[in-house]
Amino acid sequence: MLNSIETVYSPLLYPYKLTQKNFITVVVDIFRASTSICAAMGYGITEIIPVGTTDAARKKKEEGYLVACERNGEVLDFADIGNSPSDFTKKELVDQSIVFSTTNGTKAIELAKDASEVLIGSFLNLSHLSNYLQQQKKNVVVLCAAWKNLYNLEDSLFAGALSAKLLEDVNNFATVCDSTKAAMDLWLMAQADLPGYLSKTSHRHRLNHILSEEDFHNTLQVDSMPCIPVMNQFSIKNKDF
Amino acid sequence: MLNSIETVYSPLLYPYKLTQKNFITVVVDIFRASTSICAAMGYGITEIIPVGTTDAARKKKEEGYLVACERNGEVLDFADIGNSPSDFTKKELVDQSIVFSTTNGTKAIELAKDASEVLIGSFLNLSHLSNYLQQQKKNVVVLCAAWKNLYNLEDSLFAGALSAKLLEDVNNFATVCDSTKAAMDLWLMAQADLPGYLSKTSHRHRLNHILSEEDFHNTLQVDSMPCIPVMNQFSIKNKDF
Repeated sequence: MLNSIETVYSPLLYPYKLTQKNFITVVVDIFRASTSICAAMGYGITEIIPVGTTDAARKKKEEGYLVACERNGEVLDFADIGNSPSDFTKKELVDQSIVFSTTNGTKAIELAKDASEVLIGSFLNLSHLSNYLQQQKKNVVVLCAAWKNLYNLEDSLFAGALSAKLLEDVNNFATVCDSTKAAMDLWLMAQADLPGYLSKTSHRHRLNHILSEEDFHNTLQVDSMPCIPVMNQFSIKNKDF
Repeated sequence: MLNSIETVYSPLLYPYKLTQKNFITVVVDIFRASTSICAAMGYGITEIIPVGTTDAARKKKEEGYLVACERNGEVLDFADIGNSPSDFTKKELVDQSIVFSTTNGTKAIELAKDASEVLIGSFLNLSHLSNYLQQQKKNVVVLCAAWKNLYNLEDSLFAGALSAKLLEDVNNFATVCDSTKAAMDLWLMAQADLPGYLSKTSHRHRLNHILSEEDFHNTLQVDSMPCIPVMNQFSIKNKDF
């Protein structure tokens, strides 16, 4: 029996009728939560505790945690760092636990909790994640965190890239999901010049004032941070693999 | 001020924050409701009355209406014709009113009722619809009827084809919608061999037992039925244009 791949473009479309119950969900929010989490795990941060609101982040700060929290591109006064991938790759953060305030990312992770595993995906850990999934012999659902529940190109392209890698082993995976097929075709079109393709996304323009050229560049560094961030009950850790 | 184009891949994602309030919604359900409606209007049927259930269709039959109603590829015993595009292109139906039982199509049309106009789109009326929309000076939302609320390739491709046509007039339309951009790129990829591309859709396989080769072929005949089906309070009629 081949394992299925399904892609869900918006939290509003999740969950839906899955081919089987035994599935792993990969949460993706390219701009920026899932990319930042992969940067953190790949760089050696021990634990990320996602929270959905700035109030929750402030409370965690009062409890003594390091906190990543920004709104509209500004690091909040009580926070230690902002939300960019580059904020998480600092020597003093290695081996630390950090609370990460992210609205979309936290919502998607919370939604996915019924999966047998909830992993975090981005271009930074694409191949490593694919290799891990190839070994699990489970169905895969890619859940795009989206923005205000709308479809976005960057999450979709990642879903296409991951699906194309998984389908390289035709004895392991198959898909009958139109969302996955569309995402793979877009990836085919975009992969030769990912920055060029993604420069036309709505999110790129929406985030223009807070997403530096360096961040944009770092976000698209395929396989730069091999790691398997997995959500446990309260936090994300890097799975040995 | 340019008019916007937005694409909604599932009824679950509609309505959402529209750029402006003054918009026309184009409902699309390629396999098969919107294609059959365009075939009917193009062929000269006066009026289509969409209903969402077979019970509603049966009741209309008892009131004396002609009724199109099938389930699982079988014309129901009380009905006059089935739901295929070819069922609606029969001489004896010209100048008649017909009740059309379609679950997805009716749901999407009902959802769209707050738009300033609700139009029905398919490959059969692509250019005629585009020409009409170019003259209205209103924002356009393409609502994909989907299947069990899931994204499908065929509705998405139509959205891409229509959007590409609308954007030919850069002094009239613009889009910042990622769904629309993705749909247009897929259309770019598919347009040279639409049947070949669509033969891989999940819906094609799902409908394989009820969608004949002739129906599949007819569904993809671009511009074969120039018409502007518009939903009024209770029924769809062809708008003079």
